[in-house]
Parts: sequence; C-alpha cells; structure tokens
Amino acid sequence: MAASEADAETAPEARGGKVTITEIARRAGVSVPTVSRVVNGRSDVSPRTRARVEDLLQQHGYRRRPAAPGARAALLDLVFNDLDSPWAVEIIRGVEEVAHAAGVGTVVSAIHGRTGDAREWMRNLRARASDGVVLVTSALEPVLLDELRILGVPLVVVDPAGSPALDVPTVGAANWAGGMAATEHLLSLGHRRIGLIAGPPRLLCSRARFDGYRAALEGAGLTVDDSLVVPGDFRPESGYAGCDTLLDLPDPPTAVFAASDQMALGAIEALRRRGLRVPEDMSVVGFDDLPEVRWSAPPLTTVRQPLAEMGKLAVRMVLKLARDEQPDSPRVELGTELVVRASTAPVARP
Amino acid sequence: MAASEADAETAPEARGGKVTITEIARRAGVSVPTVSRVVNGRSDVSPRTRARVEDLLQQHGYRRRPAAPGARAALLDLVFNDLDSPWAVEIIRGVEEVAHAAGVGTVVSAIHGRTGDAREWMRNLRARASDGVVLVTSALEPVLLDELRILGVPLVVVDPAGSPALDVPTVGAANWAGGMAATEHLLSLGHRRIGLIAGPPRLLCSRARFDGYRAALEGAGLTVDDSLVVPGDFRPESGYAGCDTLLDLPDPPTAVFAASDQMALGAIEALRRRGLRVPEDMSVVGFDDLPEVRWSAPPLTTVRQPLAEMGKLAVRMVLKLARDEQPDSPRVELGTELVVRASTAPVARP
Repeated sequence: MAASEADAETAPEARGGKVTITEIARRAGVSVPTVSRVVNGRSDVSPRTRARVEDLLQQHGYRRRPAAPGARAALLDLVFNDLDSPWAVEIIRGVEEVAHAAGVGTVVSAIHGRTGDAREWMRNLRARASDGVVLVTSALEPVLLDELRILGVPLVVVDPAGSPALDVPTVGAANWAGGMAATEHLLSLGHRRIGLIAGPPRLLCSRARFDGYRAALEGAGLTVDDSLVVPGDFRPESGYAGCDTLLDLPDPPTAVFAASDQMALGAIEALRRRGLRVPEDMSVVGFDDLPEVRWSAPPLTTVRQPLAEMGKLAVRMVLKLARDEQPDSPRVELGTELVVRASTAPVARP
Repeated sequence: MAASEADAETAPEARGGKVTITEIARRAGVSVPTVSRVVNGRSDVSPRTRARVEDLLQQHGYRRRPAAPGARAALLDLVFNDLDSPWAVEIIRGVEEVAHAAGVGTVVSAIHGRTGDAREWMRNLRARASDGVVLVTSALEPVLLDELRILGVPLVVVDPAGSPALDVPTVGAANWAGGMAATEHLLSLGHRRIGLIAGPPRLLCSRARFDGYRAALEGAGLTVDDSLVVPGDFRPESGYAGCDTLLDLPDPPTAVFAASDQMALGAIEALRRRGLRVPEDMSVVGFDDLPEVRWSAPPLTTVRQPLAEMGKLAVRMVLKLARDEQPDSPRVELGTELVVRASTAPVARP
C-alpha cells in the first residue's frame, strides 16, 4: 500500500496516503503536538526531532503546499456541522455556483460536531485529495486543522455565527449593524417597548446583534429594559417560548426583534395561539432572510444575511489560496440589509 | 497529457481522461449516436465500425465496469437541476448520511437544466472519477447517460416528481396514495366542496396526486367539480393565485388541497390578505412536509414525502450497482403519510 520513498514526491496516491499524523508521531516516537509544532515551524523542537519528523512527513507524501498544478484534485470540500441548519442550502448554492464555474466539484459533508465523523471525513479527503476546504461555523479539532496544513489544503471559514477568531481566513456578516437596523426600523414605527429574543450568548453573532439592539435604543434616548430581553437558541421552539414570556409580562412590548428568522416564526405562532395578530397586535422582525419567510403568514420583515454570497466569496478565497495567492483580507464581513415586509406596522396608539 | 496506450488500462488518469465521446466518434470517423449504439450493444453497427470504436474506447480508458476495487473513487455525485428546490437540502441530508457512513464523499452539483452546465459537470466527473451518480428529477441528455454507461458509473434517479420512466433504477414516492389521504382527511372533517390547486400536468406526480383526489371524492360518492380544480406550478405564487381564483367563485370551496407545501403557503397568504382565517374560514392541506411548515401560521396539515429516506435508499442502490450487484427492485416507491397539524378543521355548518 505504501508508496516507495522514491515515488513519494510524485505518485498521486502518496498525497492521499493512508498514514495519519498520529501514525507519523508514533513512528517518530514523539507526540502529536510535537508533529504540529514541526509543521507550524515553531522553534521549541530539537533539531534532531524536527529532522526525523520532516523525513517521515516527506516519505508519506505529506507536504506543505499542493502538488504540481497537474495534480489539482478538481474538488473542494464544504463542511457543515449539520445539514438541517436553515442556512445550509443557501450556502451550498453559492459555493456550488462559483466552484462549478471554476471546474471544481463541491463535496458536501456533515460532521455533526462528532470527532469520529470529522476524522472519517478527513480520511475520505486524504484518500481522494482536495483543493481546499470551506468550513461552515463548525470547529475542527486542532489535530485536523494541522493535518490540512500539512497536506497543503487551504481552509476558509464561513461564519454566520461569528465564532471566536481562528487562525484562518473567515467570511462573516455584519451582525451588529443588522441588529441596529432591525431595532431602528421598529423605533421609526413609533415602538418604544421593544422586546428582544436573543441568540445563545456564547456565539459572537448573538452578542453583536444584542449590542446593535442596545445601540439603536440608546441612539433614541432609551435604555435596555432587562425584562424585555429573553434568551433563545435560534430555533423556532425557543422563539415560541420567548414570545410567551414577553406576553406574560404585566406590560408586554408592542414589538419584538427575534435574532433569527426561525425564532421569529416561533414568536408568530405564540401570538397566533393567543388569538393575537401580526402586525396589528405585535410587530415582529427576524434575522437571516431565509427563503421561506417570504411566504410566512404574514411575510416577515427581517435582516438579510447574504448567505449565498458569503459562500461564493469563501470559494474565491480558498481557490486563491490554492494558487498560493493571499486573499485581500483575512477576515471579511459582508453587509446585512433590512427587508421590510408585512410583519411590522406603526405602533397602535393606546 | 494523453496516457500511452500501454498505460491506458492501469494509469489512474486514463479513466478520467480528457477525451470525450464526441472526440472518440471523430477519431473513429463515425457519429456520436453510433458510438452510443456500440456502447449499448446494439446490432445495427457493422463489425468493423464496432471494433474500431471499441479499440478507441479501450485506448482512452473508457470501460464498461468500474476499475479494480483499489481504484474506487470514494466519491458519489448528487446532481440537482436547481439547488433552490425546497427538497434539495432534505435529499442532500439523506444522501450524505449514508455515503459518509460508507466512507464515500458526496459531490453536489446543480445543472440548471442547461446543457453547458451538465457537460461541465461531466467533464469534472471524468477528471476525478465517481463511484456512482444520484440524479434528482432532472433529465440528462442521452449522450451524457451514454457517457456514464461507458465510464461504468452507475446511475439511480430520485424522483419526487415521478418523471416518465427512464431506463435506470428510480426511487419515488406514493403520490396517488398521498393525494387520496389528503382528500379523505378533508372529507372526514365534513368538507364536500374541496378545491384542488394542482401541479403541472406534464409531471407524473401531479397527475397521480390529482387521481388520488378524484378517487377519494368518488369513494365518498362525489364527483370532481372542474371549477374547483385550478392549475399551479408548485411555487408559492401559483398557490396564491390559485386560491384567489377559488375565493372569487360564486360558491367557493370550504377546503383546499394544494399539491405542494409551497402552494399551500401561498394559499394561506391569499386567505390572510382577505382577512380570512385558516382553518376557521378555510381548511388547507399541503404535500411534501418541508421542515418549515411545522412553523407556518398555522402549522400545516400535509402529506409527508420521505425525501431524506429516498436519498438514503438511492445511495444504497447506487453503491450496490457499483459493486456489480443488482438492486432488489429497479423502481421503488416509498410510502407517503398524512401529518395532521392545525390548518384543517371540521367544516363550519352554514
């Protein structure tokens, strides 16, 4: 199975060889983090260890840069945590369009946040090679990030959730500005008691949207009323529960900003169950602009994240990296945009 | 670029070589349909022409069956017409799950019903090889079907729309039974004037759903009232327009069966715009059970097509074919199922 040493530089199967980094570490008699340190050019490795690891990496077909142009895999990997994310199909559409135009096939995988699935994906990638990886908001283990680096496979992260910065280029969306635009829209309709169904605070995007909400309120001379801010997890069920909590207040808000479209749909359902109408009894704004909210009842006013465009840009960046060029900027935020439909209306005068 | 003749049988690049069938035809001095006839083993080709074409096919690495087991591509192609189909992500999820478990990557492509895109996809497939193709409701040109056959790449069609039978295995859904279940549900709630927003009549699935609707009415001693059947194209806009047409009738129906969820959402919006409530003023049933209709307002009663399961089964079939085994049945219909939510209610007594 293993290519001979002489062949390692040229044989196509060598690049995707079956020997893992863990195996390289074992053969070198060092730990996996030590192999990582060698790969990342760190100085805290003895010259002798470095030489041994470098030799093994070379023997087994791992290299720092993609092979010669002729060895292009004509494949690009698009990796999600889960494919039931409402974003998924929008991003796939953008990625496939640009990749297709470049003559590159798009391999779509879901790793379900599970180490086993991520490693199985990496094994598949090694077996067939890849020109680049676009990773959507999911964390890969450091050892897998190292393995991509060793294989010379470039990585770009598409990050609608604004995860903590990785040491790789990312494409995100302007979450703070979007939160501000949603709230300013409600203020401009005369609303003063505006509820927020927030996203998970561990995600940067949730914090940015919340801060945009706060900034808009403060710009109008108001402050955040903590009782009007309820937690959510971006899913419809949490929007339903959050809206219920707001409606149970002695003095409920007249409008609510849900930090995801799915939570906005949940909120609308909570209102409908109580016999309340949107927007007559409560205005609702979402965030994302998923295709289906054009046909929610009523059609949803929301903040558009350009998900397909984010996917397109990520592919352009990863193909540029595959040609050994640097992207113009390692961290890009695409603009968000308020889309006004039928779920918001001027506040009813009491 | 071209592999030498001696290498053609073994060199990995030969199998995905750059020589197209059109080029084979040119070099053999025959037409592309003649190459197809050779490939398909038809008798209306002279032995001399057959031999010349066979030689060229072999020289250029085309063969009837996949190469030796070691040459497995570890890739499977999933091809859509368009990725904005509401079905797309459900099918991708099913396909990816089974392929991933088999250590096979899923290459997702959209060909947009355009010849150029389909050929570009085929060029990419040839350049990297593929263990099988799962095609979703879209027609490939006969020359591309022939090319897959020559490359020895098996094909299975996932067909929620019930296209006219191809000469390949297909996985569909029980559309007739679904149309019948939707209509019987409305009959059981006391509805007698039941509208139908139908799908495009050129698609078999539309005809099957319509026939199921008719069978249920006839089973209840009723006949189809032609004025209650309006045309649609499965998109929300056509559901909106169709529902408007039904509401403009002198004696509108009390319930409507929309032959797709997206048309049902359009119908609900048409009702909302007129200040009519679902289900109090009109019951609405859809077809598909897309994830988003669990959170439509109100949550939609619909007929579930098991799209993810259809994708899973198609992968199992195509991987079986890739191992030179035959599928248990070349044409499988998975069952549909009525899901009762909040958009249907007993008919109001006049």
